[in-house]
Amino acid sequence: MKPFPHLTDTNDPWLLTPGPLTTSLSVKQAMLRDWGSRDPDFIAMIARIRSQLVALAKGGDAYTAIPVQGSGTYAVEAMLSTLVPRGGKLLILVNGAYGKRATQICDYAGRSYAVYETAEDTPPEPDAIAAILAADPGISHVFAVHCETTTGILNPIREIAAVTAKAGRRLLVDSMSAFGALPIDAETVPFDALAASSNKCLEGVPGLGFVIVRKTALKEAAGNAVSLSLDLAEQVKALDAGGQFRFTPPVQVLAAFDQAISEHAAEGGVAGRGARYTANRDRLIAGMRTLGFATLLPDELQAPIIVTFRMPADPAFRFTEFYDRLKAMGYVIYPGKLTVAESFRMGCIGRLGAPEIDGALAAVAEALKAMGVTNPAP
Amino acid sequence: MKPFPHLTDTNDPWLLTPGPLTTSLSVKQAMLRDWGSRDPDFIAMIARIRSQLVALAKGGDAYTAIPVQGSGTYAVEAMLSTLVPRGGKLLILVNGAYGKRATQICDYAGRSYAVYETAEDTPPEPDAIAAILAADPGISHVFAVHCETTTGILNPIREIAAVTAKAGRRLLVDSMSAFGALPIDAETVPFDALAASSNKCLEGVPGLGFVIVRKTALKEAAGNAVSLSLDLAEQVKALDAGGQFRFTPPVQVLAAFDQAISEHAAEGGVAGRGARYTANRDRLIAGMRTLGFATLLPDELQAPIIVTFRMPADPAFRFTEFYDRLKAMGYVIYPGKLTVAESFRMGCIGRLGAPEIDGALAAVAEALKAMGVTNPAP
Repeated sequence: MKPFPHLTDTNDPWLLTPGPLTTSLSVKQAMLRDWGSRDPDFIAMIARIRSQLVALAKGGDAYTAIPVQGSGTYAVEAMLSTLVPRGGKLLILVNGAYGKRATQICDYAGRSYAVYETAEDTPPEPDAIAAILAADPGISHVFAVHCETTTGILNPIREIAAVTAKAGRRLLVDSMSAFGALPIDAETVPFDALAASSNKCLEGVPGLGFVIVRKTALKEAAGNAVSLSLDLAEQVKALDAGGQFRFTPPVQVLAAFDQAISEHAAEGGVAGRGARYTANRDRLIAGMRTLGFATLLPDELQAPIIVTFRMPADPAFRFTEFYDRLKAMGYVIYPGKLTVAESFRMGCIGRLGAPEIDGALAAVAEALKAMGVTNPAP
Repeated sequence: MKPFPHLTDTNDPWLLTPGPLTTSLSVKQAMLRDWGSRDPDFIAMIARIRSQLVALAKGGDAYTAIPVQGSGTYAVEAMLSTLVPRGGKLLILVNGAYGKRATQICDYAGRSYAVYETAEDTPPEPDAIAAILAADPGISHVFAVHCETTTGILNPIREIAAVTAKAGRRLLVDSMSAFGALPIDAETVPFDALAASSNKCLEGVPGLGFVIVRKTALKEAAGNAVSLSLDLAEQVKALDAGGQFRFTPPVQVLAAFDQAISEHAAEGGVAGRGARYTANRDRLIAGMRTLGFATLLPDELQAPIIVTFRMPADPAFRFTEFYDRLKAMGYVIYPGKLTVAESFRMGCIGRLGAPEIDGALAAVAEALKAMGVTNPAP
């Protein structure tokens, strides 16, 4: 093993986080140009990105992809405030921060909603969703988070979609941290809209979200939005008419995303990317367990995106020192976001493979040794 | 003169447009890294950007700068919907597309407004503003566009600020295409807020707007916003508390902006940047007049940002062909946005100096010759 620090080819630490992520050098190099927003090459790039996103979701002619400049939350807000009409009502499935954030978005937009909340380590029960929908015919839409980054839990999106469709309601999905690595498509998960971002499993740089929408749902949504910038119905009009964004697009971020999507395809698409992340997760969990750490979630609920570890009980384990030591060795991890227990998180996504996971595990062992922690059990 | 095409050092055509612009290679190279959003270096970068923006506006301790991910319109929307309360009323000064856009933003947000519209080549009259404010005590805020990119007209922002302050109302400024090159500061133009973007006269890449706000005005604005993503009051809370964005920031765009701001300072700040753009404008207009073109605006109303030329009357002049020929020679110009007359636009901003203006003029002469146009008068 070469000595620490282990760094990326741009001399940055490896980001074992939910994003911003470590991206490939070629993705970043795609930003070394200036494009006019009316340049035919640039307009072709936008069209290519949009059609590839629809293809990834197996949306066919029934769906369209709408890039939304901003973070993932902008895309989720654009989706909810454009697609839930003023007289509609949203059932929000909450088992973490991103479900809760949807309630805030509805508060801002003045949309009615109901909440079905489960504990952070507990997926929603499809039967319970069916019962709520049966009891409240006013609910027009259901909002679900595919992988809740708060814990890294995988929610049962197919089952959620099935009960929603059976009850004749419409599904809106936050697939932010899953899309591109975990299978989700319009054929098996009937959705009205799905929001995700350039900077998660598709491994672009941050600065762009997107929403994949059923065209017929979008047509009904004209006039719903409460924000000019986040009005998907207006954004798609401009994109379909002239191929251009309504407002100055982040041209370099889009170029990086275009490159990232072609690298995703070269890796074997969702299956290939998902396989690498799954191998990362399994290697990380096995190694951390060997060192004595415990995961929050049982393996069957653990998505291959980010892993929550319980905080060691040993008072010699100080998280800030652990974090700083790992960073000095070239690995950035992430604090916990749990309300129920002390924890920290390590991501499996971005330009990471077995050598980086092994390097991170070696750094963790080194940090424990330096802190004098022999047993990091919770 | 070397043969066409003249290209930038990344082999792109020169962008004589209102944005995206030609940026320096070093600004783009600043994006060749990955940062974690909680990285202390990155947090320091955000703090540096914020304090330098306040300093550029001479805001002192009374003002704060809030970066807003998105295009310039996102920043204007964040400013208007956060700062105009639900019971307030906005007087919107319109002489082009960006004034009109503010009316759309108010329609979305459900804010009351009045419009004082002048022709696209006519600045608003300060006396008329004073009369409108005197007649309608319900008007709480005035919105003005500093340089209206529709034509390139410079609006009398000091006089507008003076009558607004005299009437005890609050000023909100869209200084998108002017900030960083034309003097505007809180000492001489008393404003509650000013919105601008990374990608205009500060010469960063697109993807980030910002709003410079009077802190006391921001305090009163809690609860006003209709969008979580665009709520300046919440964004500043997170930035002030932990130095971080609320949601994943566009790290590379911010790094490019940080580099761009230091290049702006190295050029002599607002005075230095403004002097180069003024020289560009004067050289461009002189050269185009020598070729026979006519500007829309009289010189005293012409900002050094973008110049509108009247469309030549000669039927041999076809704009699409002119545009394509210039692009093939390495110069991208911009279509007109006027409602009153046929026109096209050429920008003076971005990494352009005398050699690029001369090159563009030579390309224009070449294109006229190729089209057989001897007199491009309107």
